[in-house]
Amino acid sequence: MIKVGIIGSTGYAGAELVRLLMGHKEVEIKWFGSRSYIDQEYADIFQNMFEIVDAKCMDDNMEELANAVDVIFTATPQGLCSTLVNEEVLNKVKIIDLSADFRIKDVNVYEQWYGIKHASPSYIEEAVYGLPEINRDKVKNARLIANPGCYPTCTILSIYPLAKEGLIDMDTLIVDAKSGTSGAGRGAKVANLYCEVNENIKAYGVASHRHTPEIEEQLGYAAGKECIINFTPHLVPMNRGILATSYAKLTREVTYEEVKAIYDKYYSNEQFVRVLKKDVAPETRWVEGSNYVDVNFKIDPRTNRVIMMGAMDNLVKGAAGQAVQNMNIMFGFKENEGLCQIPLFPA
Amino acid sequence: MIKVGIIGSTGYAGAELVRLLMGHKEVEIKWFGSRSYIDQEYADIFQNMFEIVDAKCMDDNMEELANAVDVIFTATPQGLCSTLVNEEVLNKVKIIDLSADFRIKDVNVYEQWYGIKHASPSYIEEAVYGLPEINRDKVKNARLIANPGCYPTCTILSIYPLAKEGLIDMDTLIVDAKSGTSGAGRGAKVANLYCEVNENIKAYGVASHRHTPEIEEQLGYAAGKECIINFTPHLVPMNRGILATSYAKLTREVTYEEVKAIYDKYYSNEQFVRVLKKDVAPETRWVEGSNYVDVNFKIDPRTNRVIMMGAMDNLVKGAAGQAVQNMNIMFGFKENEGLCQIPLFPA
Amino acid sequence: MIKVGIIGSTGYAGAELVRLLMGHKEVEIKWFGSRSYIDQEYADIFQNMFEIVDAKCMDDNMEELANAVDVIFTATPQGLCSTLVNEEVLNKVKIIDLSADFRIKDVNVYEQWYGIKHASPSYIEEAVYGLPEINRDKVKNARLIANPGCYPTCTILSIYPLAKEGLIDMDTLIVDAKSGTSGAGRGAKVANLYCEVNENIKAYGVASHRHTPEIEEQLGYAAGKECIINFTPHLVPMNRGILATSYAKLTREVTYEEVKAIYDKYYSNEQFVRVLKKDVAPETRWVEGSNYVDVNFKIDPRTNRVIMMGAMDNLVKGAAGQAVQNMNIMFGFKENEGLCQIPLFPA
Amino acid sequence: MIKVGIIGSTGYAGAELVRLLMGHKEVEIKWFGSRSYIDQEYADIFQNMFEIVDAKCMDDNMEELANAVDVIFTATPQGLCSTLVNEEVLNKVKIIDLSADFRIKDVNVYEQWYGIKHASPSYIEEAVYGLPEINRDKVKNARLIANPGCYPTCTILSIYPLAKEGLIDMDTLIVDAKSGTSGAGRGAKVANLYCEVNENIKAYGVASHRHTPEIEEQLGYAAGKECIINFTPHLVPMNRGILATSYAKLTREVTYEEVKAIYDKYYSNEQFVRVLKKDVAPETRWVEGSNYVDVNFKIDPRTNRVIMMGAMDNLVKGAAGQAVQNMNIMFGFKENEGLCQIPLFPA
Repeated sequence: MIKVGIIGSTGYAGAELVRLLMGHKEVEIKWFGSRSYIDQEYADIFQNMFEIVDAKCMDDNMEELANAVDVIFTATPQGLCSTLVNEEVLNKVKIIDLSADFRIKDVNVYEQWYGIKHASPSYIEEAVYGLPEINRDKVKNARLIANPGCYPTCTILSIYPLAKEGLIDMDTLIVDAKSGTSGAGRGAKVANLYCEVNENIKAYGVASHRHTPEIEEQLGYAAGKECIINFTPHLVPMNRGILATSYAKLTREVTYEEVKAIYDKYYSNEQFVRVLKKDVAPETRWVEGSNYVDVNFKIDPRTNRVIMMGAMDNLVKGAAGQAVQNMNIMFGFKENEGLCQIPLFPA
Repeated sequence: MIKVGIIGSTGYAGAELVRLLMGHKEVEIKWFGSRSYIDQEYADIFQNMFEIVDAKCMDDNMEELANAVDVIFTATPQGLCSTLVNEEVLNKVKIIDLSADFRIKDVNVYEQWYGIKHASPSYIEEAVYGLPEINRDKVKNARLIANPGCYPTCTILSIYPLAKEGLIDMDTLIVDAKSGTSGAGRGAKVANLYCEVNENIKAYGVASHRHTPEIEEQLGYAAGKECIINFTPHLVPMNRGILATSYAKLTREVTYEEVKAIYDKYYSNEQFVRVLKKDVAPETRWVEGSNYVDVNFKIDPRTNRVIMMGAMDNLVKGAAGQAVQNMNIMFGFKENEGLCQIPLFPA
Repeated sequence: MIKVGIIGSTGYAGAELVRLLMGHKEVEIKWFGSRSYIDQEYADIFQNMFEIVDAKCMDDNMEELANAVDVIFTATPQGLCSTLVNEEVLNKVKIIDLSADFRIKDVNVYEQWYGIKHASPSYIEEAVYGLPEINRDKVKNARLIANPGCYPTCTILSIYPLAKEGLIDMDTLIVDAKSGTSGAGRGAKVANLYCEVNENIKAYGVASHRHTPEIEEQLGYAAGKECIINFTPHLVPMNRGILATSYAKLTREVTYEEVKAIYDKYYSNEQFVRVLKKDVAPETRWVEGSNYVDVNFKIDPRTNRVIMMGAMDNLVKGAAGQAVQNMNIMFGFKENEGLCQIPLFPA
Repeated sequence: MIKVGIIGSTGYAGAELVRLLMGHKEVEIKWFGSRSYIDQEYADIFQNMFEIVDAKCMDDNMEELANAVDVIFTATPQGLCSTLVNEEVLNKVKIIDLSADFRIKDVNVYEQWYGIKHASPSYIEEAVYGLPEINRDKVKNARLIANPGCYPTCTILSIYPLAKEGLIDMDTLIVDAKSGTSGAGRGAKVANLYCEVNENIKAYGVASHRHTPEIEEQLGYAAGKECIINFTPHLVPMNRGILATSYAKLTREVTYEEVKAIYDKYYSNEQFVRVLKKDVAPETRWVEGSNYVDVNFKIDPRTNRVIMMGAMDNLVKGAAGQAVQNMNIMFGFKENEGLCQIPLFPA
């Protein structure tokens, strides 16, 4: 039984961490951090937790927290975690950062895309990009995990096998992604009001979204060379879910069976990545509330492109679930402990 | 480990049974019944079950089924279960019927409101109305459970303490209920198409909905006298959830504390009924995916009425979850086994 | 051609005024007031108006505005309009106030329910409650219109004929209403975020909503005696629409035809009130974007109650449309000018 | 005043024709065709038309209809219109076909993608592809209009200027489109039920959607050479709206201003195509209920691609509105007659 602290427990990703960790057999949440709701009952804010969570929200106090718990999840705005990390803290406690602070190895790229100065660049190198299906071994011994972004998780996992095997021309790669609204966070903004989001679809961050360099970096590692892509996210009127539809030219003629075998090579032993049957397109409804990523592909002989698709719950595999998965690996628990929720449908 | 069969496993309630039972430690589903999809892979229809359920849909064959399993759930249209029940079957297997066939003790009332002839009226008397919070003892030894309707469960539980204690004038009781669309079933009807339901609210079955006599009968038992009410359901553009808002005159002057104490008397030991804090109105979002019913009340001194409110997931506590709860009681399992899902928010 | 000013043109009701007035043949909008967006292009905020509205948002300046236009619409928070009204202004310009400031004749009741001090109580008496179907003659010569609230419009119109004719016992009247989210306004509040509203239904303002005394006053006039009711609004995950379901005891035995004849007596000449056919329940989808209120009723002989139902677009007949209807009457235009939009379905 | 007949008036596109034509000053609808609802009151099916449309649904009878009206709209499944067209009919009446029967010039391509035999291939050549912004002159004198598909309209208009001017490499063109659910029609299918569509996004018809050859043909004309593309539609949980996001390599280095000038060259005189301001992405909510297509583009210097975006109401500019626009041109009415609805927001 380990002790857990959450900084930022009243955002959507933080609340999802609470939901998952309350059902986890090996952990106890000791710290429900939330600057906005200090001293308020957690279950007064998230009424779903009534009679389940009996604790009050606490201020951020990294030093005190580092002494009180074994692992800290930071589900906070960009830039905060990097101000809290230091050697003393990392010697006492493991950190799983759900923000982008440690995801990008080149600090210049980070500072350019995020528009902020990095507060502790010396820890970027050490931080492990916590995508277990790719970096499981590195995760095991990490002190500091950069938990992947939601779009990158879905995008990378649906493209990775073909990038790795050199089957697609990375210069032709285009990612068109769609996300539910919980990805926009729980801040009170007019743009995220019900009436502004409902009955609408729009692209945003066109040619400028911050998840672009994260995807490029990871797919670049897979392909073994630098990779520049188009990535366009869209906001969809639904609560949860990300769908990534990606397009690339095939580097050689292939059959369905060959490509399927490549996906299976990487994922047949992965519980959380489901390679669907032929011609079944991933849909977000089939993964809601679960840690699954459903992936599939379609070869278009007319254009010699392959369309790669992935669907995932942005708050689970795209945030809190993946963070718990990383924690499980770091502490030697079963990797799926606390993560076996069956997708809820309809939800 | 007991064996379970489901007749009607590809409707929304049936699929929810599958979800809950797949996470239940004491059962194994042996029979995924579905007339519409015989011989098709269950996970081809409900893709959320891909790599989770590995079975094909089977025809209804009550005789064969009675020999193969310990308990049968019938999640089928009205009138079917009553044609399947007989002494031979009930001697071999327990039946939990999610349809209305055995809910109403007066067969004439049943036949009048449902417009069909009852096929086995001799079993109505024996059948136990499976609302554990009220009939737990009777459920224990039942062979045949009439699993309550969704609206009745939410309505009865939110009114029961005050009806039982004589605090409300039953002649003044009005129930205005609102339901998500999964309650309308998975049949292909124009009225339930996305574009017909979305961006709309309507009343339906006004002064004629079939759940009326069920509510009246159960609240009549509680109040100790016959009870005639107005019950108006409404269709809400959401997948899951029922909210019941009920109104009645108080029979005497009471304080908040007195009424709260009455609710607590009946529910403080009930895990699945949460009596909310003062002035917190139940909302369906806080119970989604879980077996909770959240209830609360508000006294209006201006009109001397009490407004009683209940919120619930219609597919869980309103159908499959309650059915599993009944099964747990009948087989001596922990009553909450397989039913400890934390409500998913946002979902 | 008259000149129009709007104070509060960037809220949902204000924007709906713009939409309706841009299609009105007798008016020109001269002032797009919006404190929050001063000097910004109106069409940059509401992109639907791109290439349609070519104007910038302006500050509130009642004096200047009174000289520039013939009629001012105030679509502002409670309490503002009453601070702007005075004899000099009213001598120059007509005012149609979409807030509640002048709706309630008893200033004490206003101050108690709204929790603010009324800034110009001397004008309450003069103000005309702008429900044309009931107060058409008074509207004609008014200088100051109190445009009715959204819930009151729908509730009053669906109950008025029976209250007026003494057919219902007003002491038994209960109104259970449901509204889309645009009624909650365009302010940036967590409670109105997409993920908080979607997939949820809740009651709010139980036994305390501010529209209660407004409904009570108007129905009291109709019934000829004071009237105390229960009114419970609910928030529904949709953009537009209000449905009011009301219940009352009948004062005598009546047939469907008698009650229908009473509704027809009041509404057969009213373009914007549609009395539906027998057993057709009003639905919000059938009035969206239009100035219609659809009403109907159902007699329940079991309980001797009548259920009265009304459906309406809260932003049109419940706010901007009704305001334009009042303007048309005040200026001698055709009452339906600019208000003949056919309901948009599906929308 | 001309007379109009609609075959298929009870589908979503047909009903939208009714809405638009009821507000059109130059036409009278004489025939509300609907095989499914023969002899039923039109307003009993679409209650929004209560007290607006006073007519019954009629069977399809092309001969009788040709004698009774001046123009026929066929809003019917693929393959029907081509069985109804012949010389006798076309000599009496103009036909605007909202199905795909006459959109594709190569009958083999049509038969291959639609999987049906074309019943009157001899009229394909004569039929005019009714996209007024491109084919206005041909529309004027046409007897038979092939009204464009919803996806093609949005896609073609957002790409056309750059294809025509040779600014994009057509071999690199990828179209990722998203549509509301009314595009799926009003047929009673499980896949289109509320609970199946809500809270979900999915791709469908991947590399095989029937609108692909239509887009390819029209863009091929613009580019002056054959064009093979990837087109992937997605189903979005909303009633109306299409968003097309398209990607292509630029053929030369260009500035924002140059590209903007090209869009303006084609569209500055087009009322229904709005080229948005720099960096404003089209959103479906801003065009709902109107005949507008909002288009914009973004140059990505990192990848040398341009992202072209278009948003439109699939039932208006994507179907019924465009059909009315074609009718207006054919009969010499003002092109925008009956089409000046201001977009409804929020809707």
